[in-house]
Amino acid sequence: MNNNRINLIAATPPPPYYAVIFTSLRTDKENGYAAASKRTVELAILQPGFLGVESAREDLGITVSYWESLEAIKNWKQQSEHLLAQQRGRDYWYSAYKTRICKVNATTDLNG
Amino acid sequence: MNNNRINLIAATPPPPYYAVIFTSLRTDKENGYAAASKRTVELAILQPGFLGVESAREDLGITVSYWESLEAIKNWKQQSEHLLAQQRGRDYWYSAYKTRICKVNATTDLNG
Repeated sequence: MNNNRINLIAATPPPPYYAVIFTSLRTDKENGYAAASKRTVELAILQPGFLGVESAREDLGITVSYWESLEAIKNWKQQSEHLLAQQRGRDYWYSAYKTRICKVNATTDLNG
Repeated sequence: MNNNRINLIAATPPPPYYAVIFTSLRTDKENGYAAASKRTVELAILQPGFLGVESAREDLGITVSYWESLEAIKNWKQQSEHLLAQQRGRDYWYSAYKTRICKVNATTDLNG
C-alpha cells in the first residue's frame, strides 16, 4: 500500500468487524518517524485479518485500522517489529496518545 | 468547544461507550463548509450523551465523535440542523464518505 492508498476511504466489508482508533499528538522529534510510520502501515497490511487503514494528521493525528477479529488485533499489537515501533513511539514520537479498540456494527456510505 | 479543543485527544470516560467514525473526501466546493463544520461541532457538544470529538484532515478527513449510547447517536443523526448539514454534505461538500458506528470496548493511553 503506498501513501496514496492510505489517503482513501478504506473499502471494508459489511460489518461486523473491528477498528483500532489511534489518536496521537507528536513531539517535535523526528528520530526516523516518517520511515517508521510508512513501514508500520506496510507491516499491518501483511498481517492476517487486516481489512484497511485510514490516516490524517493536523495537530492531532488519527489513524484507524480495520480488522476481521479481536484476535487479529491482538496479533498485530504483538508483532515484533510493531512492538519496537510502539516502544519508540512512547520514547520519542508521541507526547500523548490514546488507542481505542472498537467493534463496528453499522455503516452508511456516500459513493463508498 | 473551540477549534483548539477538537485538536486534542478526547477525554472520554472508561469504556464501554460508542464512536462514530466519519471518513470523508471533500469536493472543491466551499458553499459554507468551514462555518458549517464549526457549527456542527458546536451542536454536537450540546447533544445529550456527547462525550467528545477528534478531527483531522489531509486529503482524507477523519472525524470521530464519542457518545454514551446508540440512542444518543440516533438522536444526533436526527437533529434538525444536523440533518440540513448532512444534506448539504451529500449535495456539495463530499465526493465520498463513510460513517461507521462502533462500540468502544477497550482503551490504552500514553499521558492520556
